[in-house]
Amino acid sequence: MDTINLLDIHSPQDIKKMDVAQLNATAAAIRSALIRKLAAHGGHVGPNLGMVEATIALHYVFNAPTDKIVFDVSHQAYTHKMLTGRMPAFVDAERYDDVTGYTDPHENSEYDLFSIGHTSTSISLATGLAKARDLAGSHENVVAVIGDGSLGGGMALEGLDFGATLGTNFIVVVNDNEMSIAENHGGLYADLRLLRHTNGTAEPNIFRAMGYSYRYVEYGNDIARLIKAFEDVKDINHPVVVHIHTMKGLGLPVAEAHKERFHWSMPFDPETGAPLTPEADDYTDIFARQMLTRMASDHTVTVLTAGTPGAIGFTPSRRRAARKQFVDVGICEQQAVGMAAGMAKGGLKPMVGVAGTFLQRAYDQLSHDLAINNLPAALCIFHTGIYGIPDETHLGFFDIPFISNIPNILYLTPTCSEEYSAMLDWALDQTTGPVAVRTPGGAVISNPDCEIIADYSQPRYMIRRGGDQVAIIAVGSMYAVAEKAADILRAKGYEPTLINPRNVTALDTTALDTLAEYRIIITAEDGILDGGYGQKVAAYLGEAPVAVRCLGLKKEFLNEYNATKVAEQACLTPEGIASTALSYLER
Amino acid sequence: MDTINLLDIHSPQDIKKMDVAQLNATAAAIRSALIRKLAAHGGHVGPNLGMVEATIALHYVFNAPTDKIVFDVSHQAYTHKMLTGRMPAFVDAERYDDVTGYTDPHENSEYDLFSIGHTSTSISLATGLAKARDLAGSHENVVAVIGDGSLGGGMALEGLDFGATLGTNFIVVVNDNEMSIAENHGGLYADLRLLRHTNGTAEPNIFRAMGYSYRYVEYGNDIARLIKAFEDVKDINHPVVVHIHTMKGLGLPVAEAHKERFHWSMPFDPETGAPLTPEADDYTDIFARQMLTRMASDHTVTVLTAGTPGAIGFTPSRRRAARKQFVDVGICEQQAVGMAAGMAKGGLKPMVGVAGTFLQRAYDQLSHDLAINNLPAALCIFHTGIYGIPDETHLGFFDIPFISNIPNILYLTPTCSEEYSAMLDWALDQTTGPVAVRTPGGAVISNPDCEIIADYSQPRYMIRRGGDQVAIIAVGSMYAVAEKAADILRAKGYEPTLINPRNVTALDTTALDTLAEYRIIITAEDGILDGGYGQKVAAYLGEAPVAVRCLGLKKEFLNEYNATKVAEQACLTPEGIASTALSYLER
Repeated sequence: MDTINLLDIHSPQDIKKMDVAQLNATAAAIRSALIRKLAAHGGHVGPNLGMVEATIALHYVFNAPTDKIVFDVSHQAYTHKMLTGRMPAFVDAERYDDVTGYTDPHENSEYDLFSIGHTSTSISLATGLAKARDLAGSHENVVAVIGDGSLGGGMALEGLDFGATLGTNFIVVVNDNEMSIAENHGGLYADLRLLRHTNGTAEPNIFRAMGYSYRYVEYGNDIARLIKAFEDVKDINHPVVVHIHTMKGLGLPVAEAHKERFHWSMPFDPETGAPLTPEADDYTDIFARQMLTRMASDHTVTVLTAGTPGAIGFTPSRRRAARKQFVDVGICEQQAVGMAAGMAKGGLKPMVGVAGTFLQRAYDQLSHDLAINNLPAALCIFHTGIYGIPDETHLGFFDIPFISNIPNILYLTPTCSEEYSAMLDWALDQTTGPVAVRTPGGAVISNPDCEIIADYSQPRYMIRRGGDQVAIIAVGSMYAVAEKAADILRAKGYEPTLINPRNVTALDTTALDTLAEYRIIITAEDGILDGGYGQKVAAYLGEAPVAVRCLGLKKEFLNEYNATKVAEQACLTPEGIASTALSYLER
Repeated sequence: MDTINLLDIHSPQDIKKMDVAQLNATAAAIRSALIRKLAAHGGHVGPNLGMVEATIALHYVFNAPTDKIVFDVSHQAYTHKMLTGRMPAFVDAERYDDVTGYTDPHENSEYDLFSIGHTSTSISLATGLAKARDLAGSHENVVAVIGDGSLGGGMALEGLDFGATLGTNFIVVVNDNEMSIAENHGGLYADLRLLRHTNGTAEPNIFRAMGYSYRYVEYGNDIARLIKAFEDVKDINHPVVVHIHTMKGLGLPVAEAHKERFHWSMPFDPETGAPLTPEADDYTDIFARQMLTRMASDHTVTVLTAGTPGAIGFTPSRRRAARKQFVDVGICEQQAVGMAAGMAKGGLKPMVGVAGTFLQRAYDQLSHDLAINNLPAALCIFHTGIYGIPDETHLGFFDIPFISNIPNILYLTPTCSEEYSAMLDWALDQTTGPVAVRTPGGAVISNPDCEIIADYSQPRYMIRRGGDQVAIIAVGSMYAVAEKAADILRAKGYEPTLINPRNVTALDTTALDTLAEYRIIITAEDGILDGGYGQKVAAYLGEAPVAVRCLGLKKEFLNEYNATKVAEQACLTPEGIASTALSYLER
């Protein structure tokens, strides 16, 4: 076997000269580098290890950037990055942070066409590229890579359906690793299994049913076979699906054995798979334990996930314990929310556990199916605020604007673990309409003094009355920050009134009216200001003498940001809140 | 044939006693009544005329409300309403307005399970009902009716995919009338056509591919055959698709001949099909004419619709004129926006024409695919404001909160036809990022004095400076209202400053700073206040001496509302704005 120096690979041109043996050696070297980086740095383990060979074959056969390759969800694009000018970020530990975990035009706009982090979008995006090519009269290949559970998403199916009608070159590579993040769900995957078991010969075949030519590659980690398949479809004059059977986590035994655990991981021991830092107690765990307890005593309590059970604390053993009261609909947020609406109508107590960024995909279902029908389904929103996921495609600070401005939805914002549990229970048991609970960001805060109430349906602020000069209305995990700000202000001789608004969907106007003659009210929320809670307060008090100052984030997409710095810049720290108040009070 | 008195039918029980001849006579009587009402009153013509027999057969075979029937989009549910206690609203012209055009639990919560007006939701909702049934251990049938172009929507495909795995009774009735609102689009429909042409025997069969049993009914307007098919699947113990081939508009020759024109209609002459009131010049027409002009001189200009070409002015003849520069993706908003992102990346100038209420279904595509990637695609938003569609499922006053709070999107709000055209042109030609243009609500307003500028990318208010006491910031079509309010105020001795903010995504802080010492600023927008533009102004000026009063709608779903009354209640009239100002100025 040739000796491969990965750092000699600067662009796909450098692998086009290789023979199969050299390509295989390259794959082996890439896989070793990936395992080294993933173990030390964390990231998407299984998806990347499974796609090493297919990515090499794609870049060997197709001529990017002239040919367009769009990677769905793009968490499997590490090998692509290595082959397109970013090798040092994968072999030099000092430079591991040079690249993001997703395709990113800011890094390389020639090869990374889109910033992508949500699933199921690649086919639609590729149809647009194909249309542009056709109207321009050019002839490059357009390739959409999709798989890893993404194919079942509604947008992917819309794209697949439309792509079939293009009538020109359009290549969909279905990366079938037999998995989603967890198990696959849905009838589509039964068909994929049938196709795998018949070496692609079976009917029914969903791709042929939609109008695609179809080609199956059983050995989807075999470079020579992949090259053959891709060469066969290169420059094809109509839509085709190349269905490749890959192995998630290939080459790392712990990842091959524990595919769900190693879909994504923090740094780990590559031999044992043990995480290098112990996992802290978190709200996810509180949520899952509480739901299991509720399920055991009430058979109408049901928890739904859209393909991310682990992210809401439902490990495989907990899923087994929950039995039929746990539903994973696959990576299909629209289905999750629509189904929850039907379940509520049918008398169940559904609880949808979902990251705020992914719930964006069910905005219309929240509005049209749940809210208009005012059905008592509950949702628990994860990864919110500044301390969520710092990738621009997974930001947690847009949830308040998009959820709280839909009529009929009550969006509760607990400040501590005691209030979180109380609100989750109340959300399940209430019968008035849809209720979402915002999981606080950051570490778990316990506050035994938090006032728990029996009914969260009405706007009723929790108030810690101070003097009559300054009040701080602090949403969710900002409340603990405001308490520390109050300490600073007290040291300066001011006694602030502290308010936990409990929800961000309605104003306690009775309470606000008592503040109309204060000097200043500060609102603090760990979300963007635009469309948020503070602006509602400011507008309500627009004619009152009191000044209102809203603290929150700017309306912008941040990427790979430092949460501490962002909090400081937005004055969402004890010092920031206190100095904001003082700068007004001491004018 | 028996004589049928429709008013003798009070519930489905009354048709269960009938023989086939009586059922056929009932169908004939219902069809006559429908044509009479539709011609006089307007409504969804083709969808309802096509589903008379299938609805009778469904209610004959299944035992609603114990058995659950969910009608997708529910614009075809008139016969269902007639059979479930609401016959007078279809035979007595005085009572035509007793019912809405969609299933509505407020009218009849036993038979109308959900308020539904968007497409593609019925299967998901029904999976929830089925899950509730299964956990409760009961055995009623759960039936989802879908068709008329709805099946290609992502949520429907997610639901279909998941429903296949239920393992219990689950009946999907696919109403295949060979049409969407306009033509069908997508590979799926090629498969439906193949199935029709082979009497349901062909492979590939997308339903079987997903795991459903399958049954085809070629004569989907033949009650006896429909009854046979439904009886065969009643109480089935697994998921099944019943694919029925119906004829849209059956029984009304003009509707059979002109299916797209008669999908929905204002009142019309049932013989000639001519509308009873001439159509006024409207923004839809301005949009389509302008786009055709642009397309002719620039081959990169492309217009996309998600299944509603007529609603954006693209009649069949205009679609022919636009050729390959017009794309109808079917009722698939996610695909439309995702494809537009790809087209913009590929160098085209895409313009997505879409109703605000339907764009909700592509919220994540706006954010994740367009805005994060900051791609210069344009959108034109229709049916906005108070004067849009007054059904609770089609409201036009939520667009500002959900669009304007996404970073990087510029949402322009023209005040008149001159500005509308200028902004559409600029949105197509600019290269900075996604730009949406809000089609003004109500009748076309011409204002030759409107100041047109060369660059709309920066926040720059159009200001008609008055005295220094009161300013009115009026969004879009509210600007003309504010001009009339100014006349009233002038008569009272106040000279207001009038501001057209031009967009609702950013503040012209330089201009606002000049208003900080005014007595009062009034903001007026024909959308809900929560998350809207006025609240941004109020928050920005929260510490300034000036009072800010935001006028707009309450955060609530209105149904079948009277636009004039709603505008009056919200003070979005010349008198309302003027009296709001005066009540403050004359305190």
